[in-house]
Amino acid sequence: MIQPELKLRRDKIRRLMQQQNIDAALIACNINLLYTAGTIISGYLYLPLNSPARIFVKRPNHLSGEFVFGIRKPEQIIDILKEEGLPMPEKVMLEADELPYTDYMRLAGLFPEAEVVNGTPVIREARSIKTAVEIEHFRRSGAAHTKAYNQIPSVFRPGMTDLQLSIEVERLMRLEGNLGVFRVFGQSMEIFMGSLLAGDNAAYPSPFDFSLGGQGIHPALPGSVKGAPIKAGETIMVDMGGNFNGYMGDMSRVYSVGKLTQNAYDAHQVCIDIQNEIVEMAKPGTVCEDMYNKAIEMVTKAGYADNFMGIEQKARFIGHGIGLEINEMPVIAPRMKKELEPGMVFALEPKIVLPGIGAVGIENSWAVNAEGLEKLTLCDEAIVEL
Amino acid sequence: MIQPELKLRRDKIRRLMQQQNIDAALIACNINLLYTAGTIISGYLYLPLNSPARIFVKRPNHLSGEFVFGIRKPEQIIDILKEEGLPMPEKVMLEADELPYTDYMRLAGLFPEAEVVNGTPVIREARSIKTAVEIEHFRRSGAAHTKAYNQIPSVFRPGMTDLQLSIEVERLMRLEGNLGVFRVFGQSMEIFMGSLLAGDNAAYPSPFDFSLGGQGIHPALPGSVKGAPIKAGETIMVDMGGNFNGYMGDMSRVYSVGKLTQNAYDAHQVCIDIQNEIVEMAKPGTVCEDMYNKAIEMVTKAGYADNFMGIEQKARFIGHGIGLEINEMPVIAPRMKKELEPGMVFALEPKIVLPGIGAVGIENSWAVNAEGLEKLTLCDEAIVEL
Repeated sequence: MIQPELKLRRDKIRRLMQQQNIDAALIACNINLLYTAGTIISGYLYLPLNSPARIFVKRPNHLSGEFVFGIRKPEQIIDILKEEGLPMPEKVMLEADELPYTDYMRLAGLFPEAEVVNGTPVIREARSIKTAVEIEHFRRSGAAHTKAYNQIPSVFRPGMTDLQLSIEVERLMRLEGNLGVFRVFGQSMEIFMGSLLAGDNAAYPSPFDFSLGGQGIHPALPGSVKGAPIKAGETIMVDMGGNFNGYMGDMSRVYSVGKLTQNAYDAHQVCIDIQNEIVEMAKPGTVCEDMYNKAIEMVTKAGYADNFMGIEQKARFIGHGIGLEINEMPVIAPRMKKELEPGMVFALEPKIVLPGIGAVGIENSWAVNAEGLEKLTLCDEAIVEL
Repeated sequence: MIQPELKLRRDKIRRLMQQQNIDAALIACNINLLYTAGTIISGYLYLPLNSPARIFVKRPNHLSGEFVFGIRKPEQIIDILKEEGLPMPEKVMLEADELPYTDYMRLAGLFPEAEVVNGTPVIREARSIKTAVEIEHFRRSGAAHTKAYNQIPSVFRPGMTDLQLSIEVERLMRLEGNLGVFRVFGQSMEIFMGSLLAGDNAAYPSPFDFSLGGQGIHPALPGSVKGAPIKAGETIMVDMGGNFNGYMGDMSRVYSVGKLTQNAYDAHQVCIDIQNEIVEMAKPGTVCEDMYNKAIEMVTKAGYADNFMGIEQKARFIGHGIGLEINEMPVIAPRMKKELEPGMVFALEPKIVLPGIGAVGIENSWAVNAEGLEKLTLCDEAIVEL
């Protein structure tokens, strides 16, 4: 990672720290280390407001550099900061929404004189506005994602189960460079690579706050495929995470075995119309809840409100920021007053679930620029007959 | 999940709670919910010492039962407990090593009159002694894992990169029913499905405390393959997580393209001898550090101490408990005074890394019974020539 890019990111965090009179951050969680240090270490990045960042590494043992210090335990950080001539912070932030309680208490104990505040919202806000380098990562991720999905028809075999097809799609994604891990903010939501939902499994309620659920093949991992044969007349919605370089691109496309009833094509078109209308209105200054409300208005008018974003259990959003994690800021949902800004990247996913057929609809990833939105995921949007 | 099994597990936790005068646990993390409720929910399991467990579910919306209550937020738990006639606990435990600080503080706030203590070590200790049902899960997982590895020679093609071979092994694992997710205790260690290490990449230091590292194909996910062609005369160590039913079986096997130098076969045999010697001595009452010291003694005598468990950066253990997570109790490491008990399940993985060749050695999963150890992973242990 080139140093100017890391400086840019650290300064984005510093600007927000300054607004809250926070004079240092101690960063310990993988994703925020990847963001600020350009790599994942077992260790810490100390970010003072007015001095270069210091990196403290427990593992691996081969890192070195001007501001890199090897340590065995976090208590050594304080001595090193003093040796470096840095003042102790008066107000320091830790990743309180991410660090386990025990780890948080240990790190907070390093600063007995300081006020310790929650840095997670600060870092998430900084991360919500992507740099040019990050948006270029998304473009490359979108291209690889597109290339993988375009090969899906070639791996389908009649008589396959949803699980078997998912395994072949996972392989296509991996062959295009997908890293495999699906990173989610928060400790509770788990999924393997993404979801593939055939037929009524698309309506199966999940414990997690993803857009749709699915039964899963074992109670140890709810969600996605259930291991049943794919039937003619059903849809297959593929929604795999596009983690090709750390950035979680997001794209859903719909496939079918044979023709569907006209209702399915109509509902699919309603979702595409919603997407296109929202893309038309979205630009810097557009309020997130207005986009959500536009979707609800359109889907209600089209007569599919009861089936929008699930049936019995519905997702209460139609889009979400994406970045190093799949659920970043902003959220396109009710009561979200946040305005779009250049550099935001989000997934927009209007979807309708039809009993006896499955899920239809669309999901693409979009980057906000000065004029409007740039599309990052480029597959054809029609339902693909397998 | 059958209710008597869940009762058994909850009572194991209760016995340990009682020893510390803890009169209730509030469980919120996925793995501990899976252990005590038999399924993953967005919600909580409240475990009183002297009354049946109560389950509080936010999502999914289709769960019901005698002691199951739908809630929107955790603050509702207290009112329901009062309606149920349960006394407020005087000493309550929360998963302090797992819950994010913010979540912990919110849940601790539900019990303003109580002493709140760390429940993570208690639950981990209970989970370290597996039930008969859990050991049967491990047997089935071991059989599926074995079946997948036995097909590895059939997917190898000359000229493949380590990444390409890993993708085919991942697919074999998935086709045998692997759920894909690789669960690790602690918020910081990440890996996708497991590792495949060819040649000198086996010595590449990792930020994580796995047995070996590997460079990875992108800084966003260190570890495992690096995307380089597999060369003749190198070893390929396959160490994929065996999560076929929630239980993380663990097995490593070594493959080679063509013949290796005699040194590699010798070092491999040293590891197998270490394994067999430790298996011979291991029974209820055997002290974990004694097994570790035996390994060090044998590998030193054989002249491979400098290459044991890595070269420049070494793993400081030769085995680890396995269960719903890959790193459970006990740890087979220096200064570990813990004694083996019937029901413990652990992976034993003596490995030697040879410069210019790669990793050799062995890993199997073992269950402790009254007489000694039962082997759970059953592939042939010789180096397989591809």
